[in-house]
Amino acid sequence: MLADEAITLFGGTLPFWPQLDRQQKETLCTGARTVRFTAGQTLGRGERECIGVLIVTAGALRVYLTSDDGREVPLYRLAKNDVCVLSAACVLEHIDFTVSIEAESECSAAVIGAPAFARLCAENVHAELYAYKLAAERFSDVMWAMQQLLFTRFDARLANFLLEERSRTGSPELRFTHELIAKRLGTAREVVSRMLKYFESERCVSLSRGGISICDEAKLHSFCKR
Amino acid sequence: MLADEAITLFGGTLPFWPQLDRQQKETLCTGARTVRFTAGQTLGRGERECIGVLIVTAGALRVYLTSDDGREVPLYRLAKNDVCVLSAACVLEHIDFTVSIEAESECSAAVIGAPAFARLCAENVHAELYAYKLAAERFSDVMWAMQQLLFTRFDARLANFLLEERSRTGSPELRFTHELIAKRLGTAREVVSRMLKYFESERCVSLSRGGISICDEAKLHSFCKR
Repeated sequence: MLADEAITLFGGTLPFWPQLDRQQKETLCTGARTVRFTAGQTLGRGERECIGVLIVTAGALRVYLTSDDGREVPLYRLAKNDVCVLSAACVLEHIDFTVSIEAESECSAAVIGAPAFARLCAENVHAELYAYKLAAERFSDVMWAMQQLLFTRFDARLANFLLEERSRTGSPELRFTHELIAKRLGTAREVVSRMLKYFESERCVSLSRGGISICDEAKLHSFCKR
Repeated sequence: MLADEAITLFGGTLPFWPQLDRQQKETLCTGARTVRFTAGQTLGRGERECIGVLIVTAGALRVYLTSDDGREVPLYRLAKNDVCVLSAACVLEHIDFTVSIEAESECSAAVIGAPAFARLCAENVHAELYAYKLAAERFSDVMWAMQQLLFTRFDARLANFLLEERSRTGSPELRFTHELIAKRLGTAREVVSRMLKYFESERCVSLSRGGISICDEAKLHSFCKR
C-alpha cells in the first residue's frame, strides 16, 4: 500500500489518527497491506481468524455466525469505509467468539495486521478505546439482527431484505437465488420460496429463473410494518 | 451507602479505581446509593432504562431481550460482584439497544447514577475504556447465548440448565415451575414439559408438583454433549 494512499485512508476512517505520534503513524502506514477478495470468498475462520483490522475500500463483506454443522446466522454487513474489528478479536481481551466473514461481492480492504494493532492498542489508549467502541457498535448491530431473527415475522424480514437490496442496487430487478436469500436471512430455501410465491400472488414481485423483480414497492413496503 | 463500604466495594470491583483522582473517588462514593430488588422485580425498561452502572452485592439479576409482544430471549446472568453496564447504555454512545433486567432472587446492588458515570467517563479515559471493555464482555456472553439458542438442541440446553442450577444451589432438588424454565430458556412451557417427561422416562430426573429432582447426574450430563 502506498504511504500517501494509507494516510488518506487512515486519516479519513480512524478517528484516533490525529492522536497518534509520528512513529505510530509511520508504523501503521508501512505495515498496512491491501487484500482483495473474490465474491463468495470467506475469511476469518481457522488460521485466518485473527487477521487484524480491516478497512473496506471497495465492495462489501457480510459477517455471520456459523454452527458446527454449517448453519449460518447473518449478523451485519460492512461496506466501503467501514472498519472491521472482530477480525482482530484476538487483540480484544474480552471478545472470545469468532465470526465468519465473507466477501459479498468483489471486495478490497486495507489490513492492519493483528500484532501491529495489538502494539498500537498497548501504546495508545485512544486506539484501544476506539477498538472497543467499534466492538460496542457491532454489538448493537448484532442485537438488532437478533431481534429481527427472533421477533420479526418472516414476511416482514423478506420484504425488508428485498427493499434494502432494491435501494442498494438502485434497480427493481434483483439477481438472487432463493438459496442465497435463505442463507442471508438465516432460514431454509423452502421458507423463502414459499414466501416469494405469496408475494407474487399479492402482485408485489414477479419471479423468474434466478431473479426477482419488484413490481409494487409500496405494497411490499406494507409487509415491513406488520 | 457508607463511604467505607463504598470504597471497599468499588476498590474490589472497578479495575480503574486506582486511576481515579481523590475528587473522582469522593464523587463516586457520595453519589452511590444502594437499591434492593425483590425476586421477580424488573428494572431497566421505560423511564428506568438508563439507571446507571449496577454492582450486584447480593442475589442475582438476569438480563434478557423483550419483543414488543412480550416474548423474551435470555441473554446472561449477573451474580455478586458482577458489574452491569448495559443499565447505563445511554452513557455508551455506540450502544443503541435496551435490555430488560429482572431480579432472579432477592437482590441488592450499588448504583452509580448515569449522569455521575457519564461525567466520570468524560473525565477519565480509564473509566470510559472499562465501560466499553465490559460491554465487549457482555457481547461475548450474548453471542454465546445466541449460539446456544439457535444452534444447540433443546435436550442439551435443558440438561445444561438443570445441571447449572444443581451446582449453583448445591441441591439436586430444584424448585422451578416448567413455566419459569421456559421463560429462562426462551421457549414454550409445553416444550419444557415434554422434554422433562422424556428425561423422567430416561430416569435422569423425577418430577413432582412444582419441583424437579435430579436422580442421575451423570446420565443427565450425557445429554449436554450431544
